[in-house]
Amino acid sequence: MQGSDVFPNTSSTSVVIFGGDGFCGWPTALRFAAFGAKVTIIDNGARRGIDTALGTASLTKIQSLSDRVAAWAEMTGDQIAIQKIDIAQDYAALLNVLRDAQPDIVVHFAEQRSAPYSMMSSEGARHSVDNNIRATHNLLAALVETGIDPHLLHIGTIGVYGYGGAGLRLPEGYIRVTAHGADGRAVEKEILYPGEPESVYHLTKVLDQQLLAFYARHYQLRITDLHQGVVWGTQTAETQRDLRLVNRFDHDAIYGTVVNRFLVQAFEGRPLTVYGNGHQNRAFIHIEDVLSCISLAAATPPGRGEPLRVLNQFSEISSINALAKRIADLTGADIAHVDNPRQEPEGSELDADHTTLRGLGFTPRLFADTLSTEISSLAKVLKQAPTEVSEPPGRHALS
Amino acid sequence: MQGSDVFPNTSSTSVVIFGGDGFCGWPTALRFAAFGAKVTIIDNGARRGIDTALGTASLTKIQSLSDRVAAWAEMTGDQIAIQKIDIAQDYAALLNVLRDAQPDIVVHFAEQRSAPYSMMSSEGARHSVDNNIRATHNLLAALVETGIDPHLLHIGTIGVYGYGGAGLRLPEGYIRVTAHGADGRAVEKEILYPGEPESVYHLTKVLDQQLLAFYARHYQLRITDLHQGVVWGTQTAETQRDLRLVNRFDHDAIYGTVVNRFLVQAFEGRPLTVYGNGHQNRAFIHIEDVLSCISLAAATPPGRGEPLRVLNQFSEISSINALAKRIADLTGADIAHVDNPRQEPEGSELDADHTTLRGLGFTPRLFADTLSTEISSLAKVLKQAPTEVSEPPGRHALS
Repeated sequence: MQGSDVFPNTSSTSVVIFGGDGFCGWPTALRFAAFGAKVTIIDNGARRGIDTALGTASLTKIQSLSDRVAAWAEMTGDQIAIQKIDIAQDYAALLNVLRDAQPDIVVHFAEQRSAPYSMMSSEGARHSVDNNIRATHNLLAALVETGIDPHLLHIGTIGVYGYGGAGLRLPEGYIRVTAHGADGRAVEKEILYPGEPESVYHLTKVLDQQLLAFYARHYQLRITDLHQGVVWGTQTAETQRDLRLVNRFDHDAIYGTVVNRFLVQAFEGRPLTVYGNGHQNRAFIHIEDVLSCISLAAATPPGRGEPLRVLNQFSEISSINALAKRIADLTGADIAHVDNPRQEPEGSELDADHTTLRGLGFTPRLFADTLSTEISSLAKVLKQAPTEVSEPPGRHALS
Repeated sequence: MQGSDVFPNTSSTSVVIFGGDGFCGWPTALRFAAFGAKVTIIDNGARRGIDTALGTASLTKIQSLSDRVAAWAEMTGDQIAIQKIDIAQDYAALLNVLRDAQPDIVVHFAEQRSAPYSMMSSEGARHSVDNNIRATHNLLAALVETGIDPHLLHIGTIGVYGYGGAGLRLPEGYIRVTAHGADGRAVEKEILYPGEPESVYHLTKVLDQQLLAFYARHYQLRITDLHQGVVWGTQTAETQRDLRLVNRFDHDAIYGTVVNRFLVQAFEGRPLTVYGNGHQNRAFIHIEDVLSCISLAAATPPGRGEPLRVLNQFSEISSINALAKRIADLTGADIAHVDNPRQEPEGSELDADHTTLRGLGFTPRLFADTLSTEISSLAKVLKQAPTEVSEPPGRHALS
């Protein structure tokens, strides 16, 4: 996809990426920069701080944020602005950023994103709620206070709906229901689908959705909430242009998701550990597809006064068993079923609508077509730029 | 209602009231104490702090919290424990309180409760979200961490449902809906009714409800969320026993609600100011009825593993016009319609279920039977113990 297809006037577009040093944020920032937009990255360094605290690290050797943007400037001549700000804590700095950048587009990734972290301790739960709700609400309050009217894109999760859909096709945010009035007559209503999130992390995204819906309705902010599947893959068109731009590859117990865990197990000649019966279905999306979806969504903002727009952002739905079998077939690894360390329904159905992004032109990269290339390119990257620290994946890795 | 009817073993019951120095919290604490329970009041003094900040005061002259409990001890011999703790900020102190008190019942009033305050500025909105969500979530996390298994009662608001019910009878939390599966077949589900709150304050109670539902489901906490109407009235059986126990009477622009505003206008010989056309319907409840409902709810906890119990707690539904006419008839005041300072639908229908508390034995006090007594008793109290500061009600008073 070319930027010119999506953004006809990118050279005058100002984009602020909150959480722009993270796994999705960094490649998103580079994608908008590659489109020619004026990009500002705001990050509090939390993800790197957690690595230090947990003694973990990305398997790919990532550079400091200032070295990353210096490398990008050296290669392209483009200066990406960076500022270290905790938007959950420093509201005054947040106001200044918005007033300085006058963004047309804001992408908000500045949230704690690990379900296991949110469930491992009281501190993890409290930090997830405090940080995520404050970050989102401060941003909304700051947009109202400054009067700046960007299109705000927020990254939610398919997990807001819960996995207890009871045969229901998960909608894109809203569902048309029939309820009953006092006199027994049927009343039709469109409502935000109320999920049953399975972790405090997923719960924070349910709360975020309520905050976003209120501010869209009451203050006419233009907001899109992207309920994203489990992201896999590492490199994108921009991050692979130079080793100093390489994206994160998390494989620890807290931030590493199931695809990365399987890949590391395969690389190390160990069996792929499937939690429980492996019938769990999950929605997956490749990191390149994340960028395609965000670009498409960013270019089609809802109108002022429209309700919160909710889109489901994923490439395909697969069971954990099917995924393990694909990776085993490509790598020769064995598969081992282990006790499920997580409290989750096994074998839940999952069916979800994602027609809006498809209708905007999104063509998903599927495991069948992409996984083998991903494995070889990852092997190459790891050979070129291994990290110093390599922790084995722990028992509570996300599945 | 006698305590012995509701709590057969009150003398061994430990009750912690968070926010127990406030308008509802203080009489609730006294009611449980009168039942013979061991009561602990936790409060951060925020409500008194806001009075200082805004230059307002309760029209009744309220004593310091320590003088209040000293007066109660002098009259009854009962010691109510008090501690000044901000549970949104000091999680360690919260853990200690719970470990020391080992409560059987926890009542959580420790939230910012003014809709106008939450909408008057960015700071008001952010404080409402930060304080209310942190207070509620810290409490839930602390109950999980300590393993104490009290019945938690949380005070929500009828406003969580919004006033755009479109002819729907507002349910008690849950609603049975028909939705559609991918193949078009109908799917029946019971869901938490997703409201369209009309202020950030009401929004915080929507978020609270999601937090409570998650912790009830995931950690088997026993929780009742009481969605309360606009509370009116001042004195209760206990607060009227001594002038030092008198309850708050707020009539300022931020915390004074419509009944109090009308009463003050009537006392001062001014016309009752009805916002807009006055067709707005609201659910009302007398402060004595609040205590009856909380007592009945507290004595009937949900079982462990049951979903969050949601009850609607109000005495009657009335339009603002009908209320103004009642007060005008009793006091001889005139009625004046003024421009509505609030963004709210005028003339919205309001029909809400409150059968559960009725079924538990709740007999509402209605305006028709109670308002005239309330007016004379309030006049008497104000004569005996007027406050030093008396601010006229401002333009943004809650209606």
